[in-house]
Amino acid sequence: MDYLQIVEQIKKKRSFLCVGLDTDITKIPQFLLDTEDPVFEFNKQIVDATSPYVIAYKPNIAFYEADGVSGWKTLEKTINYINLLHPDIFIIADAKRGDIGNTSKMYARAFFDKFNCDAVTVAPYMGKDSVVPFLEFKNHWVILLALTSNDSAPDFQFIENKQNDKYLFEEVLLKSKPWGTKDNMMYVVGATQAKKLKKIREYIPEHFLLIPGVGAQGGNLQDVARYGMNEHCGLIVNSARSIIYAGQAHDFAKVAGVKAREMQQEMQKLLQQKGIV
Amino acid sequence: MDYLQIVEQIKKKRSFLCVGLDTDITKIPQFLLDTEDPVFEFNKQIVDATSPYVIAYKPNIAFYEADGVSGWKTLEKTINYINLLHPDIFIIADAKRGDIGNTSKMYARAFFDKFNCDAVTVAPYMGKDSVVPFLEFKNHWVILLALTSNDSAPDFQFIENKQNDKYLFEEVLLKSKPWGTKDNMMYVVGATQAKKLKKIREYIPEHFLLIPGVGAQGGNLQDVARYGMNEHCGLIVNSARSIIYAGQAHDFAKVAGVKAREMQQEMQKLLQQKGIV
Repeated sequence: MDYLQIVEQIKKKRSFLCVGLDTDITKIPQFLLDTEDPVFEFNKQIVDATSPYVIAYKPNIAFYEADGVSGWKTLEKTINYINLLHPDIFIIADAKRGDIGNTSKMYARAFFDKFNCDAVTVAPYMGKDSVVPFLEFKNHWVILLALTSNDSAPDFQFIENKQNDKYLFEEVLLKSKPWGTKDNMMYVVGATQAKKLKKIREYIPEHFLLIPGVGAQGGNLQDVARYGMNEHCGLIVNSARSIIYAGQAHDFAKVAGVKAREMQQEMQKLLQQKGIV
Repeated sequence: MDYLQIVEQIKKKRSFLCVGLDTDITKIPQFLLDTEDPVFEFNKQIVDATSPYVIAYKPNIAFYEADGVSGWKTLEKTINYINLLHPDIFIIADAKRGDIGNTSKMYARAFFDKFNCDAVTVAPYMGKDSVVPFLEFKNHWVILLALTSNDSAPDFQFIENKQNDKYLFEEVLLKSKPWGTKDNMMYVVGATQAKKLKKIREYIPEHFLLIPGVGAQGGNLQDVARYGMNEHCGLIVNSARSIIYAGQAHDFAKVAGVKAREMQQEMQKLLQQKGIV
C-alpha cells in the first residue's frame, strides 16, 4: 500500500485505528483453549468483529515467537486471513528488528516476502545501513522507533547531543529523514509523549506516525490528534489490550468490536474537526 | 551456563572462538540443495567439523526467519543438535530484540524456554525496562549492543552526551551496567573498533564482550586481544563468513574445520601470552 491508499482508507472508514494483535494465550477466553489453534481462533474472531473500524492490524511478533515454530504458524495464518479477507487493511509487523545490512535484508525478506506484511517496525541504534535494506522493498514501509511509550524511554532517547542540543530521538528523526521518504517511512511516537508531537511535527510534517500507548498504556487520543494530526491525518493510532481483552466471555469479539467502534467514532470526530472527512 | 563454566570451556579448548551460523541457502555448496533440509545439513556438518575449536555458536536469527516457518524449524533443529551433542557449547541467538517490558518477556521466553539458547543479543534503544525481562531468566544472558561493527554505527552510537561528554555507546555501557551483573550480561563490541576497547575495559573490566566482525568484516584478532582481554579472557570472538563459507566443494566442512582450528591456534597463543592457559 502507498501513502495515498492509506489516506484513502482513513477517509473511507473515518478511522485511523490500528488494533494490536498482542495475543497472549494466558489472557484469551478459556473456552477457546479447546480449539485447535486458540490464538488463531481468537485473532480471527477479533478481526471479524473489528475490521469495519480499523485501517491496520499490528501483530506483535514476540507474542507468536514465544510459542516457537507453532507460534510462527499461527502468525502466518493470521496474516493470511487478514490479507485474504481485507486486502485494504495495512499490516504492521511489530518486530523492532535491525541489524547490519546483509542481515537487515534477511529480516525484510521475512516480513515483506514471506509473511506479506506491509510494514515492519525497526530499531535505529545501528544507524543507516541497518534501516536502508528495508526501504528497498517497493510499496513496503519501515516504521522507525523514535520516541517510545515505555517508562524507560528516556534512558537513552532523551540524551542530549552536545553538538546541537537535540535529544537522541530528535537526532533519529532528523538523520533518518533523508534515508527514505514519506512514502516508505513512518515513525513510532508513543502516545504517552503527546506534547512532544508538536516539535516532532516541525521536523517531519508529512510522515505518518504510528502511535502506540493509547488505552492500557495511558495515552490520550485528543492530545495525540491536537499535536500530531496533519492535513492527511498522518496518524495511525494503535490500541491493543483495551480492545482485544475488553471481553472475556463467549461474546469477547463482539465486545472488542464495540470498543473498536467507540474509538472509531471518537476518531471520526477528530477527522471532521480537521476537515479531513 | 554461568560465567565460570564459560571460562572453564575457554581454558579447556584453548579458544574463545564463536562460529556464526549465518547460513544463507544461496551461499552453501550446491550439492546440499538435494538434501531434505539443506541449511540444517550444512549447519550439522559445520558443527561436526568445528566443535573441537569453538566455545560458542551464534545462529543469526534473520537468516532463518527469512525462510518463514520452515526456517524456524531449521533453527530449532540446529539448536537441538548442538545442545544434544555439545551441551558445553554456549549458544547465542543473535536476534537483536528489545521492546516494552511485557513484550521483551515474550522474546526471552522464545529464545530461552522454547529454543534453549544460552544468550540473546538485545538492542538498547528502549532502555532499562526493555532489557530487564531477559535478565530474569537464571543462568541465561543478555548480550547488549554497545558499539557495533557496521559502517553506520557512528550515526547514533557516537553522539556525544551534552551532560558528560560521553558517546551514546559509553552511556549504554555505564547506564546498563547496574541492570545486571557480569554473570548475566555481556556486551557487543565490534572488532572494527578494537582501539575503543581500552576505554570500554575501564568501564566494564569484568564483563564478557562478544566481538563480531573478525574476518570478513575486517577486524583484527591481535588488536582485540591486546585491548580487550582480561584475566579470565572476557572475550568471545565471532567469525562467520570467513569460516563457514571458506570451502564450496564436498569437503566444505573440513575446510571450515581447518579455518576454525587456525583461529583456535592463534587464540591459544594469545591466551598463553596472557597466562590464562
